[in-house]
Amino acid sequence: MPETKTIEIKEDIIVDQKDIAGKVNKILSDKKIYAVNVMGGAGSGKTSTIIEIIKTLRERNIHVAVIEGDLESDIDTKTLQKLGVEAYQINTFGNCHLNAVMIETILNKLSMTEKSVLFIENIGNLVCPVEFDIGEHLRILITSITDGSDKPYKYPYAYQKTNAVILNKYDLKDHIDFDSSFYDKGIKAINCVAPLFRLSCRTKDGIKEMTDWFIDKFTIFLNSK
Amino acid sequence: MPETKTIEIKEDIIVDQKDIAGKVNKILSDKKIYAVNVMGGAGSGKTSTIIEIIKTLRERNIHVAVIEGDLESDIDTKTLQKLGVEAYQINTFGNCHLNAVMIETILNKLSMTEKSVLFIENIGNLVCPVEFDIGEHLRILITSITDGSDKPYKYPYAYQKTNAVILNKYDLKDHIDFDSSFYDKGIKAINCVAPLFRLSCRTKDGIKEMTDWFIDKFTIFLNSK
Repeated sequence: MPETKTIEIKEDIIVDQKDIAGKVNKILSDKKIYAVNVMGGAGSGKTSTIIEIIKTLRERNIHVAVIEGDLESDIDTKTLQKLGVEAYQINTFGNCHLNAVMIETILNKLSMTEKSVLFIENIGNLVCPVEFDIGEHLRILITSITDGSDKPYKYPYAYQKTNAVILNKYDLKDHIDFDSSFYDKGIKAINCVAPLFRLSCRTKDGIKEMTDWFIDKFTIFLNSK
Repeated sequence: MPETKTIEIKEDIIVDQKDIAGKVNKILSDKKIYAVNVMGGAGSGKTSTIIEIIKTLRERNIHVAVIEGDLESDIDTKTLQKLGVEAYQINTFGNCHLNAVMIETILNKLSMTEKSVLFIENIGNLVCPVEFDIGEHLRILITSITDGSDKPYKYPYAYQKTNAVILNKYDLKDHIDFDSSFYDKGIKAINCVAPLFRLSCRTKDGIKEMTDWFIDKFTIFLNSK
């Protein structure tokens, strides 16, 4: 028989992340702010993709804010601020994903303009962020063609739990070995709904198809509220 | 005053990972098996780097075994087995890192040849695996030039807790924007000891410098036992 120990549980510090995510989602939904959780491995091009979408949103006078998640540094936040984008930094100092509580703490800093878009760039990690709802309306997974065509098989959860897959750095396709049909087959086997956009944030090839899709999703969101 | 609850703690399921890591390290050390924890983001080229080192070890008739860590799939294990390498698969099904208990369970399957090398390829993730000692003697961090020059600043822990940094896919340097001095400066600021190897597993440029270094480290290990 194992020893019985007594532990004091302080109920008030037990946070239900799902409840907080629901609360964040409701606050943003009520304001018609479209929250987009941008996930992907380190260096896949999350910030670059966000910047490309922002360019399109600006042409339509749609306000944008960005929350940048990083273990350390504020490199991307500064890049965005230099472009005149409302951007906030969350540093997790080792924590491998953003959570809804972190997002909630930023909400009162946001300008909260109605009918706007809030990008939340998660920690660069194809594994952990996938499991955490942070109050978003849409998920985008950014991947890089240089990471190889076997990624959907090795990291299926990330590909499964997204509304779209972006295959970035497509301009490098002639300089690497990448089996497109193997990659496509891997995604289709686990997510037959999410569109796949092959593009290059560097050369801008393929950007328009992706931003058109994004505008459609945002329009549907606004019309549903 | 918070409510007091009683919880039964079964001592036998509380595993001290550090103790197990120490145990694994001792078993391998006693057999003069050099355990190498290979870390890096998804698609950085961990398996490709291991294969390049194996080629050099084989020329010296040094036996090698590999433990492959993946969320799912056994693609890399099959690749290694086709090359005649003793390889074992650990699937974590969502868990973001390997731990010492997982390694311990494989030990009795290993051929355990004396004066050999055991590569342990961790889950593709620049964040979580860094925190866990799995009984290794050496850590190698594999990074890709296509991930950008800001990575040491954004993921400092991975660069800090490694014995060497490999900058893979260096053959693509003329096709991308990569600030070498910014990257080098970032590493030197947090890890002035680990050598940096710029190489390409695809073209084989730079491989020899890295494998020479590895052989030196392995020789020092054998002579210290």
